[in-house]
Amino acid sequence: MPQPIEFFFDFSSPYGYLASRKIDALGAKHGRDVIWKPVLLGAVFKLTGMAPLVGIPMKGDYVKRDFARFARFLGVDFKMPDPFPFSSIHAVRAFWWQESLDPKAGHALAQRLYNTAFSGGDISNAQAVAEQARAIGIDGDALLAGIESQAVKDRTRVENDAAIARGVFGSPYIVVDGEPFWGADRLDQVAKWLETGGW
Amino acid sequence: MPQPIEFFFDFSSPYGYLASRKIDALGAKHGRDVIWKPVLLGAVFKLTGMAPLVGIPMKGDYVKRDFARFARFLGVDFKMPDPFPFSSIHAVRAFWWQESLDPKAGHALAQRLYNTAFSGGDISNAQAVAEQARAIGIDGDALLAGIESQAVKDRTRVENDAAIARGVFGSPYIVVDGEPFWGADRLDQVAKWLETGGW
Repeated sequence: MPQPIEFFFDFSSPYGYLASRKIDALGAKHGRDVIWKPVLLGAVFKLTGMAPLVGIPMKGDYVKRDFARFARFLGVDFKMPDPFPFSSIHAVRAFWWQESLDPKAGHALAQRLYNTAFSGGDISNAQAVAEQARAIGIDGDALLAGIESQAVKDRTRVENDAAIARGVFGSPYIVVDGEPFWGADRLDQVAKWLETGGW
Repeated sequence: MPQPIEFFFDFSSPYGYLASRKIDALGAKHGRDVIWKPVLLGAVFKLTGMAPLVGIPMKGDYVKRDFARFARFLGVDFKMPDPFPFSSIHAVRAFWWQESLDPKAGHALAQRLYNTAFSGGDISNAQAVAEQARAIGIDGDALLAGIESQAVKDRTRVENDAAIARGVFGSPYIVVDGEPFWGADRLDQVAKWLETGGW
């Protein structure tokens, strides 16, 4: 069996969102599962001195134009969240809560939340996250209790630390057979790597 | 006549180098001239708070791997300069000196210098730049005198300020009919923009 693809992303990352709309089909084409792993990049930014893109002089204006243009290039619907960036800790905790019960449902919840965040919806607080979960058949009350549990808070921190220890410093960060690819603009290289086994 | 493509780059930028090996052929395919414009990104980094990629924790290790992998993906010879980053002010001044005398020779000199820097050679001092110029038939002594002239120093500063005022914050930065594209990983979108006029 081929190894699954690991797809690390921040729910507040526009480029991560673009990749999220392509990565499962790309994996399926090559007989690979895709394991979604949300991260909270705030912790990484402290280590690297990096900052959220849109606040950077000059570069910030460029990337706002690029997000939308890249989305059209990929044929993906895209609406810039407002406010941005937004807090994604409740979304991440909800993911790990659901993932520990049922990984497939966790994957579906992450997709739902990401699509919501980049189509004008809100996932920045616990009630909003629970509302999206309910829309795909997840028990919202159980979710609200779960994300307040110490076990889920611990899991979130452990997974985030593990991602950072693996070198995840941005979003999306895609690992294929140990080979890391950073950025939605590496999807073509991910595709070629899957086809050829590397170069 | 279609407008020329503007190709802004820093001689010390690996991604700029990768793009430099593709941009002229891409322009030619679409009947476009490509105007090369070297910039000194140090001034921009002060404005944006950005730093040279390879020094950034985590990201620095990734990009060193990505430079070489991306070069192989594009089929471009690539050798990381050592030391890196290196000073490119003499190369930039030499370019503007030659450009003011003969734009085509300026373009050829820039290509020669970029290829030298990323194939194990040195372009970090005036004598090294003159040596490369001589190898393609340029008067090295005239170049050495030219790059010390106030006119060339002024032109270098004016062009750099103009690039920054245009929004150039990184390398490569490619402008097609007013539309900016940042990064060697936008070459596919530049190609599509040239084919379709935008999307």
